[in-house]
Formats: sequence, structure tokens, C-alpha cells
Amino acid sequence: MNKIYNPERSQWKAVLKRPTQSVSDVEDIVNAVFSEIKAGGDSVVSNYTKKFDGVVLQEALVSSKEIEESIKLISNDLKSAIQQAKNNIEKFHKAQKTEKITVETADGVLCWQEKRPIQKVGLYIPGGTAPLFSTILMLAIPANIAGCKEIILCTPPNKEGKVHPAILYAANLCGVTKIFKVGGIQAIASMTFGTETIPPVYKIFGPGNQFVTVAKQIATKYGVAIDMPAGPSELLVMADDTANAAFVASDLLSQAEHGVDSQVILVSTSKNFIDAVEAEVAEQIKDLPRKEIAEKAIANSKLIYVDSQQTAVDLINEYGPEHYILCVKNEEFFLRQTYNAGSVFIGNYTPESAGDYASGTNHTLPTNGYAKQYSGVNLDSFMKSMTFQKISKKGIQEIGRTIELMAEAEGLQAHKNAVTLRLDSLK
Amino acid sequence: MNKIYNPERSQWKAVLKRPTQSVSDVEDIVNAVFSEIKAGGDSVVSNYTKKFDGVVLQEALVSSKEIEESIKLISNDLKSAIQQAKNNIEKFHKAQKTEKITVETADGVLCWQEKRPIQKVGLYIPGGTAPLFSTILMLAIPANIAGCKEIILCTPPNKEGKVHPAILYAANLCGVTKIFKVGGIQAIASMTFGTETIPPVYKIFGPGNQFVTVAKQIATKYGVAIDMPAGPSELLVMADDTANAAFVASDLLSQAEHGVDSQVILVSTSKNFIDAVEAEVAEQIKDLPRKEIAEKAIANSKLIYVDSQQTAVDLINEYGPEHYILCVKNEEFFLRQTYNAGSVFIGNYTPESAGDYASGTNHTLPTNGYAKQYSGVNLDSFMKSMTFQKISKKGIQEIGRTIELMAEAEGLQAHKNAVTLRLDSLK
Repeated sequence: MNKIYNPERSQWKAVLKRPTQSVSDVEDIVNAVFSEIKAGGDSVVSNYTKKFDGVVLQEALVSSKEIEESIKLISNDLKSAIQQAKNNIEKFHKAQKTEKITVETADGVLCWQEKRPIQKVGLYIPGGTAPLFSTILMLAIPANIAGCKEIILCTPPNKEGKVHPAILYAANLCGVTKIFKVGGIQAIASMTFGTETIPPVYKIFGPGNQFVTVAKQIATKYGVAIDMPAGPSELLVMADDTANAAFVASDLLSQAEHGVDSQVILVSTSKNFIDAVEAEVAEQIKDLPRKEIAEKAIANSKLIYVDSQQTAVDLINEYGPEHYILCVKNEEFFLRQTYNAGSVFIGNYTPESAGDYASGTNHTLPTNGYAKQYSGVNLDSFMKSMTFQKISKKGIQEIGRTIELMAEAEGLQAHKNAVTLRLDSLK
Repeated sequence: MNKIYNPERSQWKAVLKRPTQSVSDVEDIVNAVFSEIKAGGDSVVSNYTKKFDGVVLQEALVSSKEIEESIKLISNDLKSAIQQAKNNIEKFHKAQKTEKITVETADGVLCWQEKRPIQKVGLYIPGGTAPLFSTILMLAIPANIAGCKEIILCTPPNKEGKVHPAILYAANLCGVTKIFKVGGIQAIASMTFGTETIPPVYKIFGPGNQFVTVAKQIATKYGVAIDMPAGPSELLVMADDTANAAFVASDLLSQAEHGVDSQVILVSTSKNFIDAVEAEVAEQIKDLPRKEIAEKAIANSKLIYVDSQQTAVDLINEYGPEHYILCVKNEEFFLRQTYNAGSVFIGNYTPESAGDYASGTNHTLPTNGYAKQYSGVNLDSFMKSMTFQKISKKGIQEIGRTIELMAEAEGLQAHKNAVTLRLDSLK
């Protein structure tokens, strides 16, 4: 772990630098697969499934029989756990529903804003031995509350042509309409263009490796929206002597086990606390099954001592962490001044993993400093706001002259005429 | 105008096809300017201003003296008009403020969502003889209501090194913090990387030609967000025999005068009405100052007759118009079923130009079918939602077991440990 004491503001950029990813070589591969799938559809998808997943599938669509089987394969304990998480996520995302906003801006000028669901959305869930079924809850639950009509899910099959039962179970429970055994770039391309089997969608959500990440970026060139640009997961903990070093060490490690490129930062106003966390990390890391991954991430981690709370909060806003754990005496000071963070976890009994799974907040959050300008996934991510207006005869007489003057000043005579004609008809 | 009667659903895609824009050659130019400005800053910007705007500037920053002068140059009539528009836009966007949403999802698990302003935003306003000062109102007013700390504006200077007074007047009135005389690709690159003079921003808003549009897309590769991807402006009118052919023709023409690539579509359940509108367009177009532009757009326009209202609404959802005027007897039927539209203008006295200038709704709207998945600019475009959670000892005991089970099933032991440590400490 790298200890840094009171870095100068001029050094912050360097200290907080995230590893840059080079995507240009990946881009060529992605573009090639996109072109092929646009032209060839299902048969090309099938070839890639054979090539990358090592399996020839009779059918990419998961059958209702497979879903029924998955229900039997999940333990009752895990079912109850998923149900509790689902309840909490539902409560929190349902509360985000907004009402129609209606304003009579001038006499007879009625304007309103309504949110309507995106009709077709696609979710991507990576494969592998650790099935990320929690992400299905985070995406399919709000999609359903929003009222999306079609919610499809793509995930790669294993060598036996199967999908992990936890993924099928969660997808079915959360109202996914169709599940396809398609992974990687070919999944993103299929949801972008549509194939004979896979319908095209308007917006694609979900995590993935760098091929999937770049594929999602490329998809936006073809008119599809994505949840947000992605980077490696990250955690910043701000703690003082009121925090528990063992708890903080466990949180840093839970971030570190995600991947060797995970970003782990501790900021503290106490040198003693930093030393205590360092010792705890060394102890706790020993028994982790994903120790090798965690060790690499921890080797790159930063323990930053600053001597004032104001400096700390400025540094944190400069970084804009995806996950931000706050264990300090003076919570209010930090909360009031934090502008750039994806999700904030407050106090000694609020580990990041609570938000990853079960507290109810969403775990799809802006990485890579994007918390400065992007929201995490929330109910509105599955809707778009539309405006409406209805102007009466009285209303157009009220604002007509203003429109005429402004249109004329912008040199747009036909814009003016549209009003003049109406005003004249009322004379 | 192209008349199409009852097109088959299989032909809709072709009938509703928008002209595709080729961006690949523009991309090379944009990438080159970006690299140069990233490396060279102000001096490179200054060279491009000389090259493209034909002027050598002492200083890119607009002085307070220039702003004071602009105030004197605007007529009192136009000032009053801008003030009325500003009032209405303020009313409608202030009403979009959302409260903090707090939910205790389980006993002792307190979650909340808050929206906080994007700290630094940049607005781009094109130059030319017709100054689009109305767009400044549409962007700077909500940015101010949101509480953005830095709101900068870039706009190209004319050959005398000046900016149109209406732009300076509107920017000053609406709380823009700094105005820079920089246009085109160099403006977008400057706001992306920052120069000695121009601060970098987190999100860029505003219209522009195809160079600016591509530059905004490229900016997203460097971690900057943009309002939305852009395409030519478009209007779809749905009208039946209760509509006024002269009014509808004036609306189609107000769209057509924007540019030769403007999209103009009329859908109707009445052949007679279509003929009447066609005749009116031919009449009204004669006297327009921008007649040549309008004629080209009108030549590509489509008048589509369909024999049922259901078919009409399906076709409109398939198209997803930016502006959608609805002049029909059965308004409710259409409103209820419209999912894909940027802004809807209802009834005979609601021209599109009302929303362009003064009714209060925003005129920065999704084009190119993006209404299927993107919102128009609104208050939330200048904010991001963040989540917070605070879990008590009771709370972690309530959901701890669920987190442990789910983390274990995903193979993430350190995630589980972060909870187990806390639960054990409470035993």
C-alpha cells in the first residue's frame, strides 16, 4: 500500500490518477464483429458462440424448461436472501417515481412534463464461475417498475451450453421477458441491430469485460443508448479515529477482490488510523480465496493522510469515487460538501457490500470520475421525460408577441408567421 | 412534397428513413484538432480562430465592457420579450426540482437519493447572422436553477472579433459566468481539456454544425458528458379534419426553414386535409426570406395518409419525432399511446415556435429517433442523482445474513467478510 502524506494540490491529479485503458486495438475487433452481425444475424452469432464459448447451441433462447429447472437448483436460503434484497430494491426504486409536473406558465399556456418508459431495454450479464445475479436485480427491478415493455437479457453459455441457475432464477423472478445465451461483443451487437432471434433494443445496461465495454460504446454510434461508460470498480474510504480499522480493512479488501485493476483509496486525518488499517489488511488478506487478485489491487492502493477536513473533502470531490465510505465524527460537514460521488456509505455499520446486494440502493454506479457528471442507475434510467403543451386562444395572445419578436431577431420568419397567422385569425 | 397513402408496415422503415450522415471524414479532422489543443492550448485555439473566423483576438474572454455595450444595443421590445420568455422557462424548470427521497427499506437501513448540481458546465452557441440567443435561455436558465457553479459559454466571433449583442445580453441575463469568443471544434476541445484561459467542464451542451456535433461525440471519449447526440431538426404533425390547414402549413414551414436537411412529416386520416395543406404550403412559402432552404426541405417532406388512428399512432411511435404537433379531435387517444416523442404541441393554437421560444418548455430535444431513449434537456440534465445509506447495528443484523448468502453465491468472500466482521462484533 502506498502511503502519501499531505500531497500538494498541484500533485493531486497525479496521486489520484486512474490507470488508463487503451481501447484502440479492441475497437478494431469490435467494429469487425458489429459489421458481420449487422449483415449476417443469427448464423454469425452462432459462429462466435462456438468460437468464444466453445459450444454449438440448438437455440440461443433459454426455454421455460431451463427456467423451471433453475428454480429447483437454488437453495431455499438463497431464495429467501434474493427475495429480501428484491423487496428492498423495489421499495427504494418505487419511491423514485415522479408525478406529472404541470405548470400554467402564462395565462392559457399549459405546459407539463411526464416520464414514459423506454419501450425496449437489453441487459448484459457476464458469465464465468461467479454469476453476477445481483446485477440482474439492480437492472430488471427498476426496468419493471418503469414499465419497460420488453426487457431482454443476454449472458454467455458455459461449455455445456448452460447458464448458471442463479442467473436464470433471478431473471425470471425479476420479470425479464426473454433470456438469450449469447455473450461478449456478439451480444451487444445483436441487441443493437437485432437478429432473426434477438430483438433490437433502445438502451443497453450492464457490466462486462473490456470487449463488452468497448462494444457498448460502439453501439451508441448506431443510435442505441447505454447506461453509462464503464471503468474498473473503485472505493474511497474517508475515516478518522472514530472508525474501526478492522471494518475499514474489510471494506478495502472487498473492493480489492473485484479485480487487479480495482481502485482502493483510504483518506484519513489520522496517521495512526492509517497504520492500523494497513496492519489489518495484511492480516485479513491471508485467508481470502481471491487473495492473488486482492494482493495486486492492494499493492496499487493509496493511503492518503491530510491534515484538514476541508482538504480531505476537496480531494474527494476531485477524485469523484464510485463508492464512498464515510466513517468520521463530523459526518454532516462531509455530506454537505460532497458533490462528486456515486453512492455514499455512512458510519461503521454500513459496508459497501450492503449496497452491492441488499440495502435497496443501486449498485450500477459511475466509475472513472464520472460521478462528476453521471448519475448511477436509478428509476429514471429506464424512462425518458417528455414535455407537452396546450395553448388556448387566450394563451397565444398572451405570449404571441414575444415569440414574434424573438423569432424575428433570430432571422426565422416562418417561425414568426406560424404565430402571426394564428393571432390574425383571432382579431 | 411526397404523398404516401397507407404504407404497409413492412415499408415504414423505408418511408420514415432519415438521411444518414457520414461522419468518418469529419472525425479525422476533429481528432487532429483535439490532439493539437490538448498539447498546445491557447495558442493553438488562437490559430484556429484566425483560420476559421478570420480574426486575431487580443483576448478570447468577453470583457464586462463588451457586455455593457450589448445591453445598450438591444431594443426595449426585445428585452421585454426575452424577459417574458425567461420568466416562463424559469417557472417550468423550477417546478422540475425534486426533493430528497428517503426510504427505510428495512429496520435500521436508511437509504436516500439526492440530486446535486454538476459543478462545471459548458454551453456552445453557434455564430452566424442569426444569433441563437434563445438557446442560451434554454441552457443557462436550468443550469442556474440546478446550482451549477461554473457556467461557461463559447461562441465564435465575427470578422471584427465581436459577438452578436443578443448573445451577450442573454448570456449575461441568464447567469453565464464567463463567455469566450471561440467557435467550432476548437471550442469543444478547449472545454474538454481546458486551456490557460478556458476552464475544462464536466458536461457540454448546445447545438452546432456537423463539426461541432462530431466534436461533442469525440469529447465523450475524454470523459466529458454531452447533452445528447444531435441530428437535423424535425417535425411531425398529426392532424385530422378538425385542424386548420393554414396553421399546419405554417408549422411545417417553420421547421423547413431551419435547414435543407430538416425533416417535415404530416400524418393524417384525411386525404382532403393533406391536399389542403399542400396547397397552403405552396402559397405561404412564396414570401419567406429563407425560401430556398425551405423549398429543399419541403421537397423531401412526406404527407402520409393512413386510414386508422391506431395505425397513425403506431407509425408515429416508430418514427419518434423531435417535435410532434397534434391537432385531432381524439387528443386523448393519441396522448395516451405516444411513447416516443421529444415535445408534444397540442391543438390549433400551439405552434412549435411557442416551445422554441417562450412557452417555458425546453427546445433542446432528441432528434434522429432518439426520443425512443433520451429525454430532452430538463433540470435534471444539469444534475446527477447520488444515493446515500446509513445502516444501524440493528440494520446490519436485519440484512447481514442476506448479504453474506448472496456474496458467497457470487464467489466474493471479502464482500461477505465485511459483513461477518460487523455481525460478529455485535454478538
